[in-house]
Amino acid sequence: MKLEIVGVDGLPEIRPGDDLARLISERATLHTGDVLAVAQKIVSKTENRIVRLADVTPGPRALAMAEEAGGKDARILEVVLGETRKIVRWTRGVLISETHHGFVCANAGVDRSNAGEQDAVVLLPVDPDGSAMRIRKALKEIAKADVAVIVTDTFGRAWREGHANMAIGIAGLSALKRYAGQYDPQGYELRVTEIAIADEIAAATELVMGKLDRCPAAIVRGLHLEFTDSGGEETAREYVRSAERDLFR
Amino acid sequence: MKLEIVGVDGLPEIRPGDDLARLISERATLHTGDVLAVAQKIVSKTENRIVRLADVTPGPRALAMAEEAGGKDARILEVVLGETRKIVRWTRGVLISETHHGFVCANAGVDRSNAGEQDAVVLLPVDPDGSAMRIRKALKEIAKADVAVIVTDTFGRAWREGHANMAIGIAGLSALKRYAGQYDPQGYELRVTEIAIADEIAAATELVMGKLDRCPAAIVRGLHLEFTDSGGEETAREYVRSAERDLFR
Repeated sequence: MKLEIVGVDGLPEIRPGDDLARLISERATLHTGDVLAVAQKIVSKTENRIVRLADVTPGPRALAMAEEAGGKDARILEVVLGETRKIVRWTRGVLISETHHGFVCANAGVDRSNAGEQDAVVLLPVDPDGSAMRIRKALKEIAKADVAVIVTDTFGRAWREGHANMAIGIAGLSALKRYAGQYDPQGYELRVTEIAIADEIAAATELVMGKLDRCPAAIVRGLHLEFTDSGGEETAREYVRSAERDLFR
Repeated sequence: MKLEIVGVDGLPEIRPGDDLARLISERATLHTGDVLAVAQKIVSKTENRIVRLADVTPGPRALAMAEEAGGKDARILEVVLGETRKIVRWTRGVLISETHHGFVCANAGVDRSNAGEQDAVVLLPVDPDGSAMRIRKALKEIAKADVAVIVTDTFGRAWREGHANMAIGIAGLSALKRYAGQYDPQGYELRVTEIAIADEIAAATELVMGKLDRCPAAIVRGLHLEFTDSGGEETAREYVRSAERDLFR
């Protein structure tokens, strides 16, 4: 089996309202069966998930946390708190949030870098699965290709240093590849029964995306996956471990 | 930028003492600059990290835990405890261990499936970086190619459902790609400053490895990385977050 991962080069600075499917298909030939990964930052920008810090008035909680952390920007904390369903950790100025989607990540995914303008932050899409689905549908139209779409973001992990790309939105593709009920040649059920395949695809595409190369999209070609829109498992919410099942929250 | 990921097909059932570098280079052409990922299971088998359960006498702690969990095999728990430096969680029959290497994973990486024989378990390599380095050195000799090597295993994650492939041993390649001190066009330092590049490569190769296809090795071609053996950052121990820095242990 052989895969190709190709970066989509030459995208312009993305602005609210831009048509990502069109911009990408003008720069890359998409084929049925391809998986397109798109960095959250540009998806969020097209959806105008940009907050100008001059427009933010921090509330008492954000002000108190900023002081506790010794000089964090209270306006950014205010935005982060708005994107946070639950604070998972707040220690030494590091804020690990559970977002409204259920993802656990630093600062609820709010980020000041590569915002495209001064004194602004970019938020995660409100509905990253919906974002992926819109791009998938538009590509069917524009590129005449049945392409699965993953919206990716780079998250830290528990226990392990370094960040890795993960899937926060999915369309057309199941989040998990299931091996449950499959057995090895000795008749033992496989230990690992669910592979986070969209997370692995996201990680793979980060290898060609880079952070400063203005290559926020990449195509994976050669995966023999069945694409569907059953509305069942084609969602990054499949990755959200419920609090009851989670030993680390 | 374009990457290729190619599975190494047709490897035989691996046995203790087998020469993995030779078996792989007989089935795949390796070029200088390639990264070879090899599944932990076959590396461990060549190193005879196989324990026959008939040879294991569970101690009182393993027996008590087996009873607590309502029917777990106390012999397997005995082996797992031997591989465990610290129990991170022991809840509802699920054991999350910190291994002697410092990795946090279920059952200290001990696995019964695909052991190659009945009533046996496979343990992680004692020194996975050393395993990777031995394969790297042998490939220089046999394939006349400067190839970085990653030993991979499939771990669960905190907060997220599904398992993903990660790097547990590295040779020739830095674990982390550092962006610290790099700035976006607006002059803000990048939020994500360390990418777990070997983990992302491991994840990428899982996409062609599969779990039942007897394809426990894959080659990544087209990464423009500098390979070194400085003895500095070319170790999967770089991923081990110290307990003081870890908010989730």
